[in-house]
Amino acid sequence: MSFVYGRNITISIFGQSHSPATGVTIDGLPSGFKIDFDTLEAFMRRRMTGQGAHTTARREPDTLEFLSGLVNGVTCGAPLTVVIRNTDTRSSDYDNLRDVPRPSHADYTAFVKYGQARDVRGGGQFSGRLTAPLCASGGICLQLLKREGIEIASHIAQIGNIRDRLFNPANISAGDINNLKSAAFPVLDADAGERMLAAIEEAKQDHDSLGGIIECAATGLPPGIGEPMFGGMENRLASVLFAIPAVKGVEFGNGFAAASLRGSENNDSFIIRDDTVKTSTNNHGGILGGITSGMPVIFRAAIKPTPSIAREQQSVSLSKKSETTLVITGRHDPCIVPRAVPCIEAAAALALYDAFLEPGREIFSL
Amino acid sequence: MSFVYGRNITISIFGQSHSPATGVTIDGLPSGFKIDFDTLEAFMRRRMTGQGAHTTARREPDTLEFLSGLVNGVTCGAPLTVVIRNTDTRSSDYDNLRDVPRPSHADYTAFVKYGQARDVRGGGQFSGRLTAPLCASGGICLQLLKREGIEIASHIAQIGNIRDRLFNPANISAGDINNLKSAAFPVLDADAGERMLAAIEEAKQDHDSLGGIIECAATGLPPGIGEPMFGGMENRLASVLFAIPAVKGVEFGNGFAAASLRGSENNDSFIIRDDTVKTSTNNHGGILGGITSGMPVIFRAAIKPTPSIAREQQSVSLSKKSETTLVITGRHDPCIVPRAVPCIEAAAALALYDAFLEPGREIFSL
Amino acid sequence: MSFVYGRNITISIFGQSHSPATGVTIDGLPSGFKIDFDTLEAFMRRRMTGQGAHTTARREPDTLEFLSGLVNGVTCGAPLTVVIRNTDTRSSDYDNLRDVPRPSHADYTAFVKYGQARDVRGGGQFSGRLTAPLCASGGICLQLLKREGIEIASHIAQIGNIRDRLFNPANISAGDINNLKSAAFPVLDADAGERMLAAIEEAKQDHDSLGGIIECAATGLPPGIGEPMFGGMENRLASVLFAIPAVKGVEFGNGFAAASLRGSENNDSFIIRDDTVKTSTNNHGGILGGITSGMPVIFRAAIKPTPSIAREQQSVSLSKKSETTLVITGRHDPCIVPRAVPCIEAAAALALYDAFLEPGREIFSL
Amino acid sequence: MSFVYGRNITISIFGQSHSPATGVTIDGLPSGFKIDFDTLEAFMRRRMTGQGAHTTARREPDTLEFLSGLVNGVTCGAPLTVVIRNTDTRSSDYDNLRDVPRPSHADYTAFVKYGQARDVRGGGQFSGRLTAPLCASGGICLQLLKREGIEIASHIAQIGNIRDRLFNPANISAGDINNLKSAAFPVLDADAGERMLAAIEEAKQDHDSLGGIIECAATGLPPGIGEPMFGGMENRLASVLFAIPAVKGVEFGNGFAAASLRGSENNDSFIIRDDTVKTSTNNHGGILGGITSGMPVIFRAAIKPTPSIAREQQSVSLSKKSETTLVITGRHDPCIVPRAVPCIEAAAALALYDAFLEPGREIFSL
Repeated sequence: MSFVYGRNITISIFGQSHSPATGVTIDGLPSGFKIDFDTLEAFMRRRMTGQGAHTTARREPDTLEFLSGLVNGVTCGAPLTVVIRNTDTRSSDYDNLRDVPRPSHADYTAFVKYGQARDVRGGGQFSGRLTAPLCASGGICLQLLKREGIEIASHIAQIGNIRDRLFNPANISAGDINNLKSAAFPVLDADAGERMLAAIEEAKQDHDSLGGIIECAATGLPPGIGEPMFGGMENRLASVLFAIPAVKGVEFGNGFAAASLRGSENNDSFIIRDDTVKTSTNNHGGILGGITSGMPVIFRAAIKPTPSIAREQQSVSLSKKSETTLVITGRHDPCIVPRAVPCIEAAAALALYDAFLEPGREIFSL
Repeated sequence: MSFVYGRNITISIFGQSHSPATGVTIDGLPSGFKIDFDTLEAFMRRRMTGQGAHTTARREPDTLEFLSGLVNGVTCGAPLTVVIRNTDTRSSDYDNLRDVPRPSHADYTAFVKYGQARDVRGGGQFSGRLTAPLCASGGICLQLLKREGIEIASHIAQIGNIRDRLFNPANISAGDINNLKSAAFPVLDADAGERMLAAIEEAKQDHDSLGGIIECAATGLPPGIGEPMFGGMENRLASVLFAIPAVKGVEFGNGFAAASLRGSENNDSFIIRDDTVKTSTNNHGGILGGITSGMPVIFRAAIKPTPSIAREQQSVSLSKKSETTLVITGRHDPCIVPRAVPCIEAAAALALYDAFLEPGREIFSL
Repeated sequence: MSFVYGRNITISIFGQSHSPATGVTIDGLPSGFKIDFDTLEAFMRRRMTGQGAHTTARREPDTLEFLSGLVNGVTCGAPLTVVIRNTDTRSSDYDNLRDVPRPSHADYTAFVKYGQARDVRGGGQFSGRLTAPLCASGGICLQLLKREGIEIASHIAQIGNIRDRLFNPANISAGDINNLKSAAFPVLDADAGERMLAAIEEAKQDHDSLGGIIECAATGLPPGIGEPMFGGMENRLASVLFAIPAVKGVEFGNGFAAASLRGSENNDSFIIRDDTVKTSTNNHGGILGGITSGMPVIFRAAIKPTPSIAREQQSVSLSKKSETTLVITGRHDPCIVPRAVPCIEAAAALALYDAFLEPGREIFSL
Repeated sequence: MSFVYGRNITISIFGQSHSPATGVTIDGLPSGFKIDFDTLEAFMRRRMTGQGAHTTARREPDTLEFLSGLVNGVTCGAPLTVVIRNTDTRSSDYDNLRDVPRPSHADYTAFVKYGQARDVRGGGQFSGRLTAPLCASGGICLQLLKREGIEIASHIAQIGNIRDRLFNPANISAGDINNLKSAAFPVLDADAGERMLAAIEEAKQDHDSLGGIIECAATGLPPGIGEPMFGGMENRLASVLFAIPAVKGVEFGNGFAAASLRGSENNDSFIIRDDTVKTSTNNHGGILGGITSGMPVIFRAAIKPTPSIAREQQSVSLSKKSETTLVITGRHDPCIVPRAVPCIEAAAALALYDAFLEPGREIFSL
């Protein structure tokens, strides 16, 4: 079940970095939904390569080929499969990595798990390339959520030591959401964005890389999505978010900062607004007891710095059981964070739409 | 599937705070395993009430009653069910909360999800009481892991603004593990522990509460546990950890701190030790590509301050759709963090043992 | 996942024949449903022991103890757990069977699967005793289905060579359903029933046993329940029905008889009745493409003769790897079929109610 | 989860009769397995169209295109996706069926489930076309089982009123298995096969169709595969077999015939052969308590006559809510049974291989 996610829809992702294609099958979509292909492709372009100085030179159009699930662009209830060809694969770049695992990549654990038969080309199924089908399926769920009045947007909250301002969690503006969706480099504070870009360029010059934090908000969610215990929205969001390579932490609402607060500071008072229950602040990040409260869902994901750096590193020879050094060549992002933004949104959309379809979901209101 | 977890074992938890009992069924345990009941009960006592100044006055012996799965204390392959009676329930404490949800509790989302029929007594199925069966099942998995040479231990890394020193992630000492398991208040730095206890007492005097951070390590794990993508150990650990009420963030290895690091700082060099592959540092937290690397698995969980505080708070009347105030009476922990420690370990044990049993798991070695 | 069933509700069964108790947890029940305990207990009595000449002498009241999931007898949305104590267990009856597996029982496969630690008392988790929690959970689902206008009833279609008349599948009368539910020995043709009882008595005198066939009908089902492929109602019903020990075959509509028919004989014409689509005949058994058609769902299950017979049989000594003979003592039904009737209905109710809750289930009508 | 099957491997099928392609993703295959493509294609040809007088005129080469999961034809541990293009689709054949559902097809239930957006072309996702990816994935599992010494073979036990002799369930000969695998029309009694072919031709001349029964055997299975209750091999085999359109009944061992037998006739004595436990007869069909006994697994599946017949039939107009008549044109098999044979084997292979990989599967032996 490693590449399969979901209870009410089922996402089944496939592909390796250098296999003929990657893709995804979504089972359980409602019938009669007209996919907006332009919007979907625009969403896919946000994670694409070759968009700027901070991304790799690998260029792939990521054309979406739909094999099933549609009749004239409208979902028919059959599983929808979309395929993305891997067209620009230079496998020879990776030949020298078969014996010497790259530090902080999955090369060694892939060897342990799959042995000599593993696909070493471009990281095989561990490649960030697998986020293309994640985004394709998540992009469709984003459209289905939008139909329900639910929007998901995110910004780069931190790169290296440079921080964007955070969302006001109790009041995410529609303007911010729209700006972020169309931004080439999504930040709330344009000046911080400029400095982030400079920091990325600097790291690149140093043959090094940078990590960061992405903050994501989902607005328009009705209360009542998610379930207690293992079915909580935090559990479910986290269980998709950690599928994105490089995500090493996830926090909701105040998250780790809550550790330093007192209850009187962290609690959110209930209030009545527009005849319904809201909270005056949103330290809880829109989720209480695993269930959406009707406030925006807010979370942050930590992205580690790209492990591929153009410096000599210490590693080992698997065949010789001896230590050695390694220089990674090939094309790599000095900072993966900007391209991870749509992946985070896609992951959130998958988890939220899946939960939205919960069986027998009766929502009680005042 | 809200209260059900696992692929290779299945954990099915039941109960409410004030139902006749809580409990858990574990399906898929290997047969022939002799449970050490003394060790299990000692583990359960670590989450129990009434242990000290920082916990509530509710006292329940948490006697474990095994309904099935054993013959003479040895697993027989049938689903194992253990029941914990709720003996000390003062439901009248909660009667006034039916109409006025407690801030930052699940009272309001429970209303939205389950309507008037919800169990308002003690938070119903959202209660921390449900961590008793979590600990019972996790405690059994801890014993099964220990049989494989795998140990899990954790400490209170932070309460309020007071921090314990962190594990040395590349070298968790067996002595630390043993000390933590038997400690009344598990910290690595005894002095920090004293100050934490003082801070808890101070918060209590202020009719307030404190949150914190728990750091957990699993040692002795072979490389190769977990799978890529949605089956990654980070995904699976997080998806159990967020089932513990009050957990609002989870990070692995350097976690959020990795955002500020460069790749050259965050990468872990591979080395050869004792004829096998290790890393010189352990910024990756023992998981690469979702799969254990053979280094200790290290993660931290953020615990929000107990939302129940003995101060007047703003809330709403659900029936009147109007704002009102609320004073919570009853017995509540000023800081849940110490009692959450065994819950974190139990959650980790469930996720790790479940992954350990992965079907057809062949581990390739040098 | 062996003892866990369901997608939209989750049934988790536990217990052995001679463990302290058997029971079941149902996760996912809607909140606010008042269980009719009298009806549930009456349903449970139909599978109970000691009801007549054809059943074993083991007498257990099968009192239902609810540990969770209810507030004042009404579902609250938490997992519902019901426990049935095993009070009348004479384990010594089975001691001689540890080494010599009973023919056509699961004794040998239990040894292969669980080794020496298996529970040999009364067949352990393979015992028909496990159908008690199946009936308890299925009995609750029967009530939930009835609330939706859906009824399930069945009759003994065959015992040995004696056959009852079959349902008219296109027209199941409400009178028949009511009669069957309250009948001590449910048949459509009372005379056939008399002869069946005589045949059972005769087999008993011969120290032998009889099998049979149970025919089950579900009426009032709307069209649109179930899904194509692996999610079909036939797949789902079969996957629960074969959990009942002794079921060796399942067929829907014309079933195996369809093999001898031509398409022109087996096809069911569509007609309009009461402004909706029906079929003039119901050879398809109410399921087309895995989905209910709006006609009654009809299936039959084959029950093998009780393997426990009071005659000397050939078997082997597992310890000596040699052939030997065996005489089974203890209490056993000469014919399990009458007691299997409510089990079949319970199984059908579980599968149908689970499918009824299908997420996002929009039913299109004319 | 409708098109997703499996616990230890996950099969995700996609496609419609007239979508660009059908296909399947298999997650969880072991790495390092070299697929024999010639054998796989030969297996696929057995379900192909245009093989003889008894099949439709639709001819598709069913070329297998592997998009992922392989490196040089060897599994690498990544999900394996194979795509089969739909090249010969004449959608206009089906235009007149949008409003008038074909009797005993899924046309009406598809309308109820998916509304106007459903894919009416060729039966959409309800088409027998979906058995192509079932066979592709099952064919790979057949090779994996064969590596373990497990063979699956089947024969046409009945078409119309003509019956082949049945397997000797206690002793399936390797010669029979080999003959069946290479036979154009797999029967044990060649003369019965001739008469079956004549009966099919006769039905075709009558513009009618025939059903039948397929008997399948799996040999070489070790004891201990499968689990009790819902995880039984009967449950699991049935839950895949009913995914094949037209299957309306499944029975194991003596199946429905056991209803007429006494325990003394139906019980299988245990014996010692080659130092292990066997049974002298195999009325139980190789499965006891849901678990393989080490004897061949034997089951039979009932196939209804093809509902598409070239005769005028009664149906309804969905738009006019009125009764009408229908004549089905296009290409259809007068008897689907021969083409269903490899589908049955594929389904059995999926269920058995999935169970074979059961986690932590320790098999105890004498």
